Amino acid sequence: MSEFDLIRRLQELICVEPGAGVAGCVVGIGDDGAVLDLPEGQSLVVCTDTLVEGVHFPDTALPGSTGHKSLAVNLSDLAAMGARPAWFFMALTLPKQDAVWLDAFAAGMADLAATARVMLSGGDVTSGPLSITITALGLIERGRALVRSGAAPGDLVVVSGRPGSAAHALEQLRRSETPADEDLSALEYPVPRLALGRSLRGLASACIDISDGLAADLGHILELSGVGAAIDLRRLPCPDSLAAFSGKDRWPLQLAGGDDYELCFTLPPRMEPELKELARSGVAELTVIGEITRDNGLLFETGDGKTYQPKRPGYRHFDESGGGMQ
Amino acid sequence: MSEFDLIRRLQELICVEPGAGVAGCVVGIGDDGAVLDLPEGQSLVVCTDTLVEGVHFPDTALPGSTGHKSLAVNLSDLAAMGARPAWFFMALTLPKQDAVWLDAFAAGMADLAATARVMLSGGDVTSGPLSITITALGLIERGRALVRSGAAPGDLVVVSGRPGSAAHALEQLRRSETPADEDLSALEYPVPRLALGRSLRGLASACIDISDGLAADLGHILELSGVGAAIDLRRLPCPDSLAAFSGKDRWPLQLAGGDDYELCFTLPPRMEPELKELARSGVAELTVIGEITRDNGLLFETGDGKTYQPKRPGYRHFDESGGGMQ
Repeated sequence: MSEFDLIRRLQELICVEPGAGVAGCVVGIGDDGAVLDLPEGQSLVVCTDTLVEGVHFPDTALPGSTGHKSLAVNLSDLAAMGARPAWFFMALTLPKQDAVWLDAFAAGMADLAATARVMLSGGDVTSGPLSITITALGLIERGRALVRSGAAPGDLVVVSGRPGSAAHALEQLRRSETPADEDLSALEYPVPRLALGRSLRGLASACIDISDGLAADLGHILELSGVGAAIDLRRLPCPDSLAAFSGKDRWPLQLAGGDDYELCFTLPPRMEPELKELARSGVAELTVIGEITRDNGLLFETGDGKTYQPKRPGYRHFDESGGGMQ
Repeated sequence: MSEFDLIRRLQELICVEPGAGVAGCVVGIGDDGAVLDLPEGQSLVVCTDTLVEGVHFPDTALPGSTGHKSLAVNLSDLAAMGARPAWFFMALTLPKQDAVWLDAFAAGMADLAATARVMLSGGDVTSGPLSITITALGLIERGRALVRSGAAPGDLVVVSGRPGSAAHALEQLRRSETPADEDLSALEYPVPRLALGRSLRGLASACIDISDGLAADLGHILELSGVGAAIDLRRLPCPDSLAAFSGKDRWPLQLAGGDDYELCFTLPPRMEPELKELARSGVAELTVIGEITRDNGLLFETGDGKTYQPKRPGYRHFDESGGGMQ
């Protein structure tokens, strides 16, 4: 299969039109560049993330999971901005041409692209060590993007889902144990919180996805907002598989594990009724885990007047897998 | 240096504001995504290209050249669309943290970014085998993008510059010979034809950059326009270093060599006065090398009633370094 056939194949396999109200991809795959018309009054939101084999996923990873996840991590960033996905561009570097691998990879990506209504609009295929870089483009009404810098003292700190699943699955796989289905799914097929992100427009004062771990990512909000936070670890929701663990055994996974594509956000306490309403809507499990403080620093309280200090530094933690400029 | 410091360093080193009339980067590096406001009436043009060490550049390449070229190949695609560069996103995969390499890489990129008035607005830094993926965003007035599909029988075929320099330099380096400065510069510091691309709006009926070689890329125009072309090889302008070569020695480099970031475009014959005016303006050396034909196929005439057939197939050629979806 030539590189050109390979591109055509990807184009066929990942054939999704963007959702209603997203204006046209005037020129798509097959020219020097894609030409996109944005609807009036909308801002463009752009995120880019790379997955490298051996760094972000093992060489034993299912190709469908790799396809899903390389798109999911980017859509998760769009979710954290409150944006609606519209288009994406993929730079795929492949060590060899393997039609079976490619079809499964594309199928995993296509399923998520269809659910999220995001259209593959261009990219590049090249030979080299396996890696996937996706740049995802989303839209948001001007002035309504959820940023990291808006948290204020007194704001509630909320997390979606139950952090720790993906890190637990990864740890178990490393020990050749069998993870719970729920944990394995969180690791291999993370679901970006797009509907939640959209619902947080006008509600959240700051928002981030916790792909680098709750401690590190909440730390980004604190740093950019010039505030601190007190988190009550007793309130931190826990995946079923970790329910029997002691705090000291599960907190490292839950706070510093990373690879959870949940959202952490803050909102003024007067918005609590709207938050409860949102939780009741079933868009996601939402838990208030603490409060923004005037003092700098991130405090994890264990409830007996003591605090827990993650071994790996909290909001100054940047692990070996790299860090995003966004 | 942590990955975070590395990002900050890149941000400092490649600090360019986009040109006048390009509206704001409302949220830049440091959030989940960049938020960009487009001026009214403009379409977005998006191009993405990857450079992998050992495939697109040797491990002996100067880091400044790698930085320059990874941005240049993307800006060349914007040029071929007639777009004005505005922002770019970089996914940088590095095998190790090497501040000296990074500074030189960033300096090469920053010089070109400053000339082109294009702003680094986000990205990702990760560890792994050295590769650089850039997604460049440009702007063009709605409906004015230069596409590949508009060539019509009778149109003139024009090429900018003198194709063959980069391929000649590459061949000489492989033979441990010393290329001419002009050729080496074309290979290591290609200059995207941005001003020319802008000038071709409303003039060219089709346009492409000839990064995969003149034969292959002109072939794309022909395929997408449903036409053929007759090229007079006696008119093909020749780099000084190839002037003493016989046709059969230089045509392979000039037609199939690739890595030339010149533009090939077509325009109706009635536009010839505008073309001459443009050539006189000095924006680029412009040469009419042939004509679009009704019959399919790409004919290279050598002037004695004979034709030349490139050994490597013309417009079906996709070399090992991969092919763009655009």
